[in-house]
Amino acid sequence: MNDFTKLFNPTGIAVVGVSEDLSRPSSQSVCALIRNGYSGGIYPVNPKYEVFEGLQCFPSVVAVPNKIDLVVIGVPAKGVLPILEECVTKGVPFVLILSGGFRETGDDGIELERKILRTAKAGGVRILGPNCLGFVNVHSNVFAAFGSMTRPPQLKPGSVSLVTQSGGFGYSIALSCAEQGIGFRHVIATGNESDINSVQLIEALLSDDLTKSIVVYVEGVEDGRALLEVGRKAMKVGKPIFLWKGGVTEQGAKAAASHTASMTGRYDFYQALFKQTGIVEIQELSDAVDFLQAFAPGKLPQSNGVAVMGVSGGSAIVFADAGERVGLNVVELQKTTQDRLSSVVPNMGAVHNPIDLTAGYFSQANQVKLSKALEAVLEDPAADSLCVNLATTGKSGSLAAAQVLAQVSATTTKPIMVFSSAPKEEFGPAQLVLTQAGIPVLSSPSRVARAIGALLRYRQCQDHLQHHEDEVFPKSFGRHDGLEDDLQQEWLSEVGSKKILKHIGIAFTDDVVLSMNELESLAVTSYPVVVKVISKDIPHKTEVGGVKIGVANPQELRQAIRDISLSVKQLAPKAHLEGMLISPMVMDGFEMIAGVINDQVFGPVLVIGAGGIYTEVLSDVSCRLAPFGVETAMQMIKELKCLPILQGARGRPKLDLFALANALVLLSQFAWEYKRQIMEIDINPLFVLPKGVVGADALIALSNQHS
Amino acid sequence: MNDFTKLFNPTGIAVVGVSEDLSRPSSQSVCALIRNGYSGGIYPVNPKYEVFEGLQCFPSVVAVPNKIDLVVIGVPAKGVLPILEECVTKGVPFVLILSGGFRETGDDGIELERKILRTAKAGGVRILGPNCLGFVNVHSNVFAAFGSMTRPPQLKPGSVSLVTQSGGFGYSIALSCAEQGIGFRHVIATGNESDINSVQLIEALLSDDLTKSIVVYVEGVEDGRALLEVGRKAMKVGKPIFLWKGGVTEQGAKAAASHTASMTGRYDFYQALFKQTGIVEIQELSDAVDFLQAFAPGKLPQSNGVAVMGVSGGSAIVFADAGERVGLNVVELQKTTQDRLSSVVPNMGAVHNPIDLTAGYFSQANQVKLSKALEAVLEDPAADSLCVNLATTGKSGSLAAAQVLAQVSATTTKPIMVFSSAPKEEFGPAQLVLTQAGIPVLSSPSRVARAIGALLRYRQCQDHLQHHEDEVFPKSFGRHDGLEDDLQQEWLSEVGSKKILKHIGIAFTDDVVLSMNELESLAVTSYPVVVKVISKDIPHKTEVGGVKIGVANPQELRQAIRDISLSVKQLAPKAHLEGMLISPMVMDGFEMIAGVINDQVFGPVLVIGAGGIYTEVLSDVSCRLAPFGVETAMQMIKELKCLPILQGARGRPKLDLFALANALVLLSQFAWEYKRQIMEIDINPLFVLPKGVVGADALIALSNQHS
Repeated sequence: MNDFTKLFNPTGIAVVGVSEDLSRPSSQSVCALIRNGYSGGIYPVNPKYEVFEGLQCFPSVVAVPNKIDLVVIGVPAKGVLPILEECVTKGVPFVLILSGGFRETGDDGIELERKILRTAKAGGVRILGPNCLGFVNVHSNVFAAFGSMTRPPQLKPGSVSLVTQSGGFGYSIALSCAEQGIGFRHVIATGNESDINSVQLIEALLSDDLTKSIVVYVEGVEDGRALLEVGRKAMKVGKPIFLWKGGVTEQGAKAAASHTASMTGRYDFYQALFKQTGIVEIQELSDAVDFLQAFAPGKLPQSNGVAVMGVSGGSAIVFADAGERVGLNVVELQKTTQDRLSSVVPNMGAVHNPIDLTAGYFSQANQVKLSKALEAVLEDPAADSLCVNLATTGKSGSLAAAQVLAQVSATTTKPIMVFSSAPKEEFGPAQLVLTQAGIPVLSSPSRVARAIGALLRYRQCQDHLQHHEDEVFPKSFGRHDGLEDDLQQEWLSEVGSKKILKHIGIAFTDDVVLSMNELESLAVTSYPVVVKVISKDIPHKTEVGGVKIGVANPQELRQAIRDISLSVKQLAPKAHLEGMLISPMVMDGFEMIAGVINDQVFGPVLVIGAGGIYTEVLSDVSCRLAPFGVETAMQMIKELKCLPILQGARGRPKLDLFALANALVLLSQFAWEYKRQIMEIDINPLFVLPKGVVGADALIALSNQHS
Repeated sequence: MNDFTKLFNPTGIAVVGVSEDLSRPSSQSVCALIRNGYSGGIYPVNPKYEVFEGLQCFPSVVAVPNKIDLVVIGVPAKGVLPILEECVTKGVPFVLILSGGFRETGDDGIELERKILRTAKAGGVRILGPNCLGFVNVHSNVFAAFGSMTRPPQLKPGSVSLVTQSGGFGYSIALSCAEQGIGFRHVIATGNESDINSVQLIEALLSDDLTKSIVVYVEGVEDGRALLEVGRKAMKVGKPIFLWKGGVTEQGAKAAASHTASMTGRYDFYQALFKQTGIVEIQELSDAVDFLQAFAPGKLPQSNGVAVMGVSGGSAIVFADAGERVGLNVVELQKTTQDRLSSVVPNMGAVHNPIDLTAGYFSQANQVKLSKALEAVLEDPAADSLCVNLATTGKSGSLAAAQVLAQVSATTTKPIMVFSSAPKEEFGPAQLVLTQAGIPVLSSPSRVARAIGALLRYRQCQDHLQHHEDEVFPKSFGRHDGLEDDLQQEWLSEVGSKKILKHIGIAFTDDVVLSMNELESLAVTSYPVVVKVISKDIPHKTEVGGVKIGVANPQELRQAIRDISLSVKQLAPKAHLEGMLISPMVMDGFEMIAGVINDQVFGPVLVIGAGGIYTEVLSDVSCRLAPFGVETAMQMIKELKCLPILQGARGRPKLDLFALANALVLLSQFAWEYKRQIMEIDINPLFVLPKGVVGADALIALSNQHS
């Protein structure tokens, strides 16, 4: 693991490139260090000056007599390398390069960045940047940064760390959070990530005692597997990661390519990774603000059952609308709960869920009643979280409610959240009480619903990872005859692909393979069948007329063989025909596609989808990073739009979901074991039957990077 | 049209139910009227007092010697009726009932509310409420309201009016907007809408010169057609309506039923109505805030082409991500535009879209360059709107940018919006300049994208309504023999339904109808066919085994007839069998369903969807309120997920979209003409062919409420 202690807590910082022009990045950094009372050594470097802002200014890094843990470089790109060489000489462990003009500017910049990285690696120096805003250790006033990160308002110390590939936008997240009173630990912009990258930093923050949660903005990571591991580790140590993935659409990705030229992995794979780790995806500044507040108390709902209580019926409806979209259930309360509520809620109100306390209920006079109402609801076994809509309730009413909520909240492990839209002048006193009690206050009922939804998904993932951790350790399938040879090919024919996949335990149609000179003597006993050409030169058989389906009798079979031979000779004249494959037609079952994509960033990813024209049109697919166990496979299946068909909707037969899940598990573990060889696997079609699954065709594409 | 002049601008207001207890609703209303300097007569009413808050207090409404345009009633429900009778006597035109205890509380309350409405109607009094927070005319300080509506902060006068069925939640919308500096005209909570309803109020606001846009929160309207007309009128007079529909999901609707017991129409129909009127749907408090600001300058984008410019690459990516989701296109700029940009953008930046000005670009020193950059982009014909990401830019930089933006914005009709996340202390001066220049500033790039998306959809709807206004006036299909008789039935058989639908111009299969005693002599010339039972007693033929498909030859046909007869006799023994229908099987084409639902709230609504199991599972349907023309029908079709199949995806034949659209138009106009008789129409399946469409079965269900 990377040790960034000296980066985050340097005993001495040299800043190269300070200038009379205080708007220069290096000047800004030194000024911020001085202004904020950084307690270590500050060593401005510029041969032109003897003194900078009252500090001794050094002609070079090596001229600094004291120990330096961090050198901040803010000179133009072409001047960076000589300074870096000085850092090597001086034995500096960390260098932050603020300057742009590298990879993001084209070929020359790429070459320059490579040189710098080589020099740093050779010299044992770690680099943050280049092309970045820097970082701030808020607790220790380390302002190795410029621009907005050094400008007011100063972030207050807290337990949230931020890692961002975009300095400008990332700092927008910090400012939005700060506005709601959220404090920070480290704020780090990573720029081009030439050396130190986001994932390494996140991992380091998991070991930082003062960091309790981590907000991340990334446009792309180079190693998806490292992110997967860090995500799972974060869940294990109980530090939630809130991640914003920029560049999720084609347009977004295009913009990403022009920005830091970082590699953008496929968004579907990121989302699969989020589900497999419990990383909480954020898609708006308000998500960061809301989710940080929601997670801070450390209370998670045990189920999707939620109670809603308040003085505004409209707010309850809006909460229910948004809640249903994120899987919450405004549950029916027990009879006893409703009875208890009846004794403290006015007749004109409602004691079923949502609970209508009636206008004006929140008041000093009603504190005891409110306390009883809250206790009744929180003791209902079906209600595992609570939204209290104060809505526009004024100063005294909201304060009265806040006091009761604070008291009751201390006695329950169920998350409670409050919606208030009252202005600060009215809500201030209540806000103070609620904040101290660790009760989040959000500014719309839908935002409360989405925040509870995020807690619920996190909790479900936590459960899943705790109970099914074994599933991440795959078994080996062992070798079988000819496998190693097979894996030396570029791709495997249908026959070869099916052989391997049968070996790992996936059922396929019972095919008859006839060589070209056996064709005359064929003896098929059961119809209808499918006839397919076999040739090492034809990976995509349908494109050359190499497939005939629905062949009903011996006469049609002979005709089919003749037709195929003729068509293939015309369309692929150079192909060597090895023979014909005769498969029984699968007549029942639901047609699906299962496959593996060995992605550059994420490694082997399993994909399952509905088959036929609708798959392509509707993109009814779900995916997960291999390897995984049957629970994860079931989750994949349950995400599909065609699930009701598999489950036997509208009087159709129920299909064998478990067998499908099992096939996915086998495929995922096989793809993981042979990840160096396998580039792609397609089982298309894969029929799900009332009992079992059966593949009818398969294709394995192999990598050239053989082991 | 309803004249609410005296309601909104009363010359005198009596408030019944004032009390020493100043927390009582009536007391709150009078205090607010006094405090805010309402200039008309204020007449507190309570026989117990001679003076209330320094004003003469009257024993009854009739005891007030002056003219009263509005009586506000805040006494308990059972005391309301006698006061209303006094109002009739006094000739008061408007009564506002704040009190609850009516329809929302059950049978007794329903009866009481009915009585009150009868009395009011008979006496010529219009009622707002009961069970509502009241209303405020911000410009004239009419505070006929209580609760949050009378508490600080006071709304500042402006051009936005708010109509809400939920006082508490609706006022949350007002407060959120007020926080961003948005001013208001009228704020009206409608409560139970016993008499005056939201739609009537919206219509009245369209004629109010001081109202420029209208925000609405509704849980349900009783007359969807009235809303349709008001929505179209709003578009015509150029006053956008921003509508939040509460209770959109099952859970939401359940909550609605328990709230004001208002009728909740189906959300799909609401959304169809929004598309057909240009009503802008809002789904979050921030939508209201953002869209009001976005629409205020009155500039609409001519196309989805958008340019993005700024100093934060991450912000541009986030904008592009959100933009793609709402149909915006970060367009490629012309070569000449890029050349012009090159002369004013640093080399390290990017002159393609998104335009990267590089960190620190926004400054006093760069104002001339920025001005040229903006002009270049705004003169590019492909870029019809512009997002400028100031992100975290500080005080002097953002002010410098704001000054240039204000200047340039005055010279263009293209909408410009700004994203800034800088705190108020930094951004204040820039905000002032931008606000004065009518340039909206939103707090995240995704919010800018969604706001531009809303402008674009509004603009597209405006175009559509301007150019296709004729399509809202349907032609008559005239009568044909037997039609009137047919429409007297409860439902029409396949034969009868097809006869009518063919009459209006929709093609169906060429069927042979055989009476029971003709069955022996049948002479079918072309196979395969479908055989279906004909019986007035069997609306759903498949349920009794009354349909056989894929009948391939005369022998199978005889067998099919025998099987059907047998099955129907067993499963529907009392049914009178008239004969059998022999239809040719439609072998090509794509199977769809087209239908009409005559909804209680919205009247006839056309529905089109993909056929077969996927329709039911995926709900691939779209709908519009009838009647409409071919452009609207095309919009419906283009919303379907199966559109690529219709368009000939993956080498399939292109199908006849125009014929499908035309069938929908005919159906919509027919359903409209006979809306009193037709309850439901189903054409299932309707096959879309490469040329034309052909229905294969149809069922018309008729209403009992005959004309």
